[in-house]
Amino acid sequence: MRIVTLLTDFGSYYPGVMKGVIWKLAPEAIIADITHEVEPQNIFQGAFLLYHSYRYFDGAIHVAVVDPGVGSGRRALAVLTRNNVFIGPDNGILYPSASEDGIVKVYEISESVSELVGTLSTTFHGRDVFAPAAALALRGKYEGYFKETDRMLRMDIFDYAVGEERIRCRVAFVDRFGNIVTNLRAEDVKAKAFYFGGVKFPVVRTYSEVDPGEPLALIGSFGTLELSVREGNASDLVGIRKGNVEIELEVV
Amino acid sequence: MRIVTLLTDFGSYYPGVMKGVIWKLAPEAIIADITHEVEPQNIFQGAFLLYHSYRYFDGAIHVAVVDPGVGSGRRALAVLTRNNVFIGPDNGILYPSASEDGIVKVYEISESVSELVGTLSTTFHGRDVFAPAAALALRGKYEGYFKETDRMLRMDIFDYAVGEERIRCRVAFVDRFGNIVTNLRAEDVKAKAFYFGGVKFPVVRTYSEVDPGEPLALIGSFGTLELSVREGNASDLVGIRKGNVEIELEVV
Amino acid sequence: MRIVTLLTDFGSYYPGVMKGVIWKLAPEAIIADITHEVEPQNIFQGAFLLYHSYRYFDGAIHVAVVDPGVGSGRRALAVLTRNNVFIGPDNGILYPSASEDGIVKVYEISESVSELVGTLSTTFHGRDVFAPAAALALRGKYEGYFKETDRMLRMDIFDYAVGEERIRCRVAFVDRFGNIVTNLRAEDVKAKAFYFGGVKFPVVRTYSEVDPGEPLALIGSFGTLELSVREGNASDLVGIRKGNVEIELEVV
Repeated sequence: MRIVTLLTDFGSYYPGVMKGVIWKLAPEAIIADITHEVEPQNIFQGAFLLYHSYRYFDGAIHVAVVDPGVGSGRRALAVLTRNNVFIGPDNGILYPSASEDGIVKVYEISESVSELVGTLSTTFHGRDVFAPAAALALRGKYEGYFKETDRMLRMDIFDYAVGEERIRCRVAFVDRFGNIVTNLRAEDVKAKAFYFGGVKFPVVRTYSEVDPGEPLALIGSFGTLELSVREGNASDLVGIRKGNVEIELEVV
Repeated sequence: MRIVTLLTDFGSYYPGVMKGVIWKLAPEAIIADITHEVEPQNIFQGAFLLYHSYRYFDGAIHVAVVDPGVGSGRRALAVLTRNNVFIGPDNGILYPSASEDGIVKVYEISESVSELVGTLSTTFHGRDVFAPAAALALRGKYEGYFKETDRMLRMDIFDYAVGEERIRCRVAFVDRFGNIVTNLRAEDVKAKAFYFGGVKFPVVRTYSEVDPGEPLALIGSFGTLELSVREGNASDLVGIRKGNVEIELEVV
Repeated sequence: MRIVTLLTDFGSYYPGVMKGVIWKLAPEAIIADITHEVEPQNIFQGAFLLYHSYRYFDGAIHVAVVDPGVGSGRRALAVLTRNNVFIGPDNGILYPSASEDGIVKVYEISESVSELVGTLSTTFHGRDVFAPAAALALRGKYEGYFKETDRMLRMDIFDYAVGEERIRCRVAFVDRFGNIVTNLRAEDVKAKAFYFGGVKFPVVRTYSEVDPGEPLALIGSFGTLELSVREGNASDLVGIRKGNVEIELEVV
């Protein structure tokens, strides 16, 4: 394992600094940005995107930091799973991925790992705690700063309710095209169409089944229901702008 | 060749997943993001930016995915040229670069290459088709999933009309500074100034020839005409916000 | 030294091209983006962010290009310091970092280094001058295109005035969370609270000391005063949107 992935809500600049820290301690690391555009402090979205990205790597150290509790004493975790290591705050963000991959061992990371960095802020543990922990994990060095634990906060990213007439699910992510990615899995999509926000979204297999400008619903690349407009923007159409919003779809 | 470049309209998250797929199949790849901010589905802009970036690499696998036709049966191509390999949908995006570099062989990529990934969505062939194809191309493995073809969609990114009094050209790109990059090449810029949107843009050699806040036109880093405002924003001044827009410049 | 960091105000696309140039001349380079979202032409902000990122790398070539004077004859510099090399325009952006690390030698870079690239624009010296210079610096080749000099423009990123009742300092950076990062250093923060924009910001150690939605001030990860709102957005609250703005804080 030489790859470290980074998934945060940090935007620009902060992730660059994390890379410096990782390379200082483990120059052999190959670092991949998954995204730094998770909506600020949207833990659910971070968990959802991590779950749908880690599986495309051939075993990696995945650092996921969406961390509204930074500085408050929330725990920092390194979770060894069958094929990966997940590092981040203990707020649920790691759980869906780690539990799917098969949890082998959970370590609590000591904040004193920041002595390898030289700074310990109360606001940026991505740099001061998680980056050095990732470098140590890359080298398999779990002595000293890591302590085994059996506690870990859970999160269910597929918490939805399917009824005959209505489905209550959650927007996970609105992408750059305005596609509204929900957490409703393929196996629970049996309708021919959905009404949402006064718009009828026929369930199709590909964009090309409707005319440009027309709304549609399909199973997207996450394996979940997406509301889209062909060559258009569903987000604008129905006014859904961000993730972790509960929505109710009317089954047609 | 160890470098894979990525140029898409995907924004964040999706490109990170593509990297996982490429590394899973070809861990030796060095991956460079050119941009993931091509305007959504703006194939012309993608072709223009690819054309002006590939030449600065010393031979690479260039993956360019702006793909409104994804899932519709449009073909996927790998184009071997004298010094590079271009991979993307057959919608014209690859043509200006590949034809300039000298096309050696054109392969159609089979969607079944997605079996190396494990998922075949109808919306994200960047991950399911183009990323694994790039990994195979990096290793020179064109058996199985690649089939020679002699068809390839063309695109002309320099389609403009130069008259004595008026020039009709195209906005290719509006950059972060508000510079309006056109597709009008240096050799066709003979005027002393242009009028556009009620503003006079004197043609100069460098920004410093006009005062801060003043409009100007010059041959920019693409080798084409750019409309700018020194230490200001031409995009705001004349209300041009995006690429692939035809504009008419009045020659002074 | 194999790492090259990039810090610019270029946004997307342009940095990708710089990477091609660097790798063409020095394929062994490991390239890290610090940020390309410095506010357009905000040299102060570039200097501030460079100063707070270079120290987290274990010696690197740091290319910092915020360059409103491009094409005007402003000088291009490569500054060898005790542990790093800093490359960029001679407009002050390099000075705080280089002088802190200990300047060993200052070279003026000749524009003719662009012959290694093949293009010399008047607008994009990131590609034509600074990228090839970085590749040469990586290999320690300072012959030919580099000439020793003893001039270098200075900049003070900690130019503030501390009074008993008022502090005049500068906004350096507004991050994605709406935190307002100032240049006021920890040792000059002795107040219990500050008034700014009609809002009282109590000085605390961590976000968790106030309720969600409440304003606060703390020493952030830059080691300087930040104005924040817990799980909220201080930038929106007081209408400060960008860096290099002088502000006056009322001491409580």
